[in-house]
Amino acid sequence: MADKVVGVLGGGQLGRMLAAAASLLNIKLVILDVGENGPAKQVLAPTSPQHSHIDGSFTDPARIRELATKVDVLTVEIEHVDADALAQVDGCDIHPSPNTIKLIQDKLAQKQHLQSRGCPISDFIPVDSTVQSIHAAAKELGLPLMLKSRTLAYDGRGNFVLRELSQTQDALAALGNRPLYAEKWVPFTHEIAVMVVRSTSGEVRAYPVVETVHKENVCHLVFAPLRTRDATLSRRAQTIAEDAVKTFEGAGVFGVEMFLMDDGGLYITKSPHGRTTRATTPSRRAKHLNTRTTSAQFCLFHSGSTALKVPSCAMLNIIGLSSSMAEVNALSAVALTVPGASVHLYGKAECRKGRKMGHITIVAPSDAELRTRLRVLLSALPSSPLTETDLHAPAEPAPGSGFPSAHPLVGVIMGSDSDLPVMLPAARILDHFRVPYELTIVSAHRTPDRLVEYARSAAARGLRTVIAGAGGAAHLPGMVAAMTALPGSTLDGVDSLHSIVQMPRGIPVATVAINNGTNAGLLAVRILAAGMPRLVDAMEEYMKNMEAEVLGKVDKLAAVGWESYSTAK
Amino acid sequence: MADKVVGVLGGGQLGRMLAAAASLLNIKLVILDVGENGPAKQVLAPTSPQHSHIDGSFTDPARIRELATKVDVLTVEIEHVDADALAQVDGCDIHPSPNTIKLIQDKLAQKQHLQSRGCPISDFIPVDSTVQSIHAAAKELGLPLMLKSRTLAYDGRGNFVLRELSQTQDALAALGNRPLYAEKWVPFTHEIAVMVVRSTSGEVRAYPVVETVHKENVCHLVFAPLRTRDATLSRRAQTIAEDAVKTFEGAGVFGVEMFLMDDGGLYITKSPHGRTTRATTPSRRAKHLNTRTTSAQFCLFHSGSTALKVPSCAMLNIIGLSSSMAEVNALSAVALTVPGASVHLYGKAECRKGRKMGHITIVAPSDAELRTRLRVLLSALPSSPLTETDLHAPAEPAPGSGFPSAHPLVGVIMGSDSDLPVMLPAARILDHFRVPYELTIVSAHRTPDRLVEYARSAAARGLRTVIAGAGGAAHLPGMVAAMTALPGSTLDGVDSLHSIVQMPRGIPVATVAINNGTNAGLLAVRILAAGMPRLVDAMEEYMKNMEAEVLGKVDKLAAVGWESYSTAK
Repeated sequence: MADKVVGVLGGGQLGRMLAAAASLLNIKLVILDVGENGPAKQVLAPTSPQHSHIDGSFTDPARIRELATKVDVLTVEIEHVDADALAQVDGCDIHPSPNTIKLIQDKLAQKQHLQSRGCPISDFIPVDSTVQSIHAAAKELGLPLMLKSRTLAYDGRGNFVLRELSQTQDALAALGNRPLYAEKWVPFTHEIAVMVVRSTSGEVRAYPVVETVHKENVCHLVFAPLRTRDATLSRRAQTIAEDAVKTFEGAGVFGVEMFLMDDGGLYITKSPHGRTTRATTPSRRAKHLNTRTTSAQFCLFHSGSTALKVPSCAMLNIIGLSSSMAEVNALSAVALTVPGASVHLYGKAECRKGRKMGHITIVAPSDAELRTRLRVLLSALPSSPLTETDLHAPAEPAPGSGFPSAHPLVGVIMGSDSDLPVMLPAARILDHFRVPYELTIVSAHRTPDRLVEYARSAAARGLRTVIAGAGGAAHLPGMVAAMTALPGSTLDGVDSLHSIVQMPRGIPVATVAINNGTNAGLLAVRILAAGMPRLVDAMEEYMKNMEAEVLGKVDKLAAVGWESYSTAK
Repeated sequence: MADKVVGVLGGGQLGRMLAAAASLLNIKLVILDVGENGPAKQVLAPTSPQHSHIDGSFTDPARIRELATKVDVLTVEIEHVDADALAQVDGCDIHPSPNTIKLIQDKLAQKQHLQSRGCPISDFIPVDSTVQSIHAAAKELGLPLMLKSRTLAYDGRGNFVLRELSQTQDALAALGNRPLYAEKWVPFTHEIAVMVVRSTSGEVRAYPVVETVHKENVCHLVFAPLRTRDATLSRRAQTIAEDAVKTFEGAGVFGVEMFLMDDGGLYITKSPHGRTTRATTPSRRAKHLNTRTTSAQFCLFHSGSTALKVPSCAMLNIIGLSSSMAEVNALSAVALTVPGASVHLYGKAECRKGRKMGHITIVAPSDAELRTRLRVLLSALPSSPLTETDLHAPAEPAPGSGFPSAHPLVGVIMGSDSDLPVMLPAARILDHFRVPYELTIVSAHRTPDRLVEYARSAAARGLRTVIAGAGGAAHLPGMVAAMTALPGSTLDGVDSLHSIVQMPRGIPVATVAINNGTNAGLLAVRILAAGMPRLVDAMEEYMKNMEAEVLGKVDKLAAVGWESYSTAK
């Protein structure tokens, strides 16, 4: 629809996603990459000779100049382009700017830039490729020490973890003659990432924060939304990412990766993330959030929404295991049997061990359902041991097992284990409807800190409703309701009833019934049904069964007469 | 990923969607259509000469045979192919079968086939192209009479509405020398459609029912899920559609269109729908439901889910208004500013009045939000008068206006208008949170039939929770809860409180508070928040404001002292 023609340096999988998004908007792309049938070129046949793709290297200045003569805007889908040649191009808008691309290519320069702008970066220093220099760095930053190549590093290539000084020669041999720098070892607990889109006018907007899981230095899994006990984390991470992206020139979609520390601290590890920096293109991560075209929209038109469209989603990279396509095809075939899973293969002609061959996105109405779906895929990976599958996609506990779901939607809490008999019927109902839940003790009076932490973190952990038992004083449901925006219900003793129904204006608590755990469970299911249509059907079924049960008694009463019915009963 | 190569007769917009879906699975397609740059060929560049597309007509037997030599499976993206030539092809699987395609091409034969299999079809008879024959048909079926061409009819072309016998010559002139049939005029209230996917083994599965809106005989808008007062309608329509598709041979995605009558009756109008019959391809309608690849998955692998992935969605066709692309581009540019909207242009080289140039899908967390987004698009259509915009995408009533939303999420009901003062604070809260609602009178004792109809239809109409006031007897909330699977809450009088908290096991009602409409409204918002993350944020904001208000009083108390605070207050 735009009448500008866009030239893209690079035609791999990211270019392929960019090309597919461009097709939807009738935007013409011309791709520069080696070969005639790369991933991007496959999905965008030129409709006229002046828009034909170019067979050549994105590091070849002559080819870059040739591309520039054919288009109005230049962008990149990979940062390892000839940035100097790009900078010398006249008559084209270039996004992001060649300066930004050059800065990204040198990871040391990138870190110095971010540090100088006040972005949170872990300690680092330049080192020479000498034993002496590396030993000096180890003395300053401690061991283990991350030794990294400043350029051409991605997916863990060009990294060396120096655990002891005696490994220094090995490190130099492994990293060759590349320019190096050293990073302080960061004992992070999780890795998170934020995609940020920046418009030509400099406005930035962050996508929801995702958790990333790496395996052998390659991104293996991505989850969204981020679940955490820290309700402030998402906003903090988005702000850090937006502030980092504001320091670079030019429009584009930028990935900012961060380490999350045990104390809630955040360090930027890569920004813009090497291979996700590009203009007017959807990123794989953004894509997995169902926001494929939004990025392009935002870059081009400063509009569109970055909000998540589904309750829970994940992305699994399909990494080649050998030179055979068989494993890739087998995993894809499994994915096609999984509800909510979509396969995105990249059309690469050859498979290699470690090569990114495609990815699978999975969406689901809840985190637990997402894990159930993902578990099928991870179990089908020959390279994935069961322990790893259990870690990332644990099986739901069997109904009636009495163990909590790792991804509960309902929190069932009681002030004392003496309340357990009253709460159990609620748990049974949740089991019946296959609703993931946890059941635990939170005492308002004896564990007030735990109460605060539980209530404040409930929404950020993914809970959607809380059932609280109230014995006499009724403080548990009332205080939980005061500290979370989630709907809370309570089953009361007679004594606490009047306390709860006289909650002050502003803080609602749903009283279900006196000592009726069944109805508390049923109300929780109905509350979830507001956002999960499956549960509306299941509840209707449950109600039909209740009706049938009573109607059965009607028939029996008529058949045997009330005298013998009464006796038999 | 499949190693079979698929040949497609036709390379228009449906072929384009098919090709895009195939790319994601590394499935190779060879397209037969006239020209080198049609919509489908643009998005699928052949990676080797033996998979190059064919420039020729899908009605040319020689070209069809040429295509067959290059592929393993043949399918169609349009039914106007040479079905006889297709039937004579050897060595290829063909889906759907040439018999099915032939049957679909002749609308009279199609209707006779469906009628003979017991599918609900309105009355029809064959007619000759003579005044005498048409008059005889009018005598039998009444006026107005639908005269239709048996072949090559789509988007209203080949149809003539005979209102008076004097128009017979005009009808014959308009319909030319085509073979005709006559259909009884059906005074339908709505048009609905169901996409059904059929696997090679004959298993069928229906997608959710959609409502379609036609304009000048061309599909203008599609909405899903279907909203209706008739809770049985969706399942009935899906069964009719599945049964119809079971009568045809071969795998594919089939569209079944139906008229919905005032009494809830359904008639099939077209099945399989002319231009949506094809194998292994997503349909435009299925696509708009975010199920693009599911259809292909199901056809190829008998798997995948047909469930809706978002709460509410719509599709708006982009129809050419003139030979200029300007209007198409202008509408697309507007769509890019609308949250949840995605533009899908077809890459057609030329625009024409009435030509389908693309479509826009819109997803939203609620029907009301969907209408708000759609309203922006309809308002941008030069051809769409305000009355039409108001009909399909009414503006939400202004907060505090006291009028109901056309697409409420919350039903606020009271037994008598004397309860209005108690209920109003709930309405004010819903206004504050921009939650669409209705407020009306439903009396358990004086309007029992209305109570039943209200409760039974609540979920199917799109309500997600009901707030019922209970004065003395408390029957309203209890009975509503018994007849809907939705979560219901009540604000009670003191007298009804003990009635409600002693609801029998199985039917939960959430008692919020005694006469506290504010908290009833807040609980409804929290219940909705379980499925609408925006409301979690808004509720947290509301709670922060309450906190700030009290903290302000803390400061004032400290500043002025409690004696003067007390006096000032």
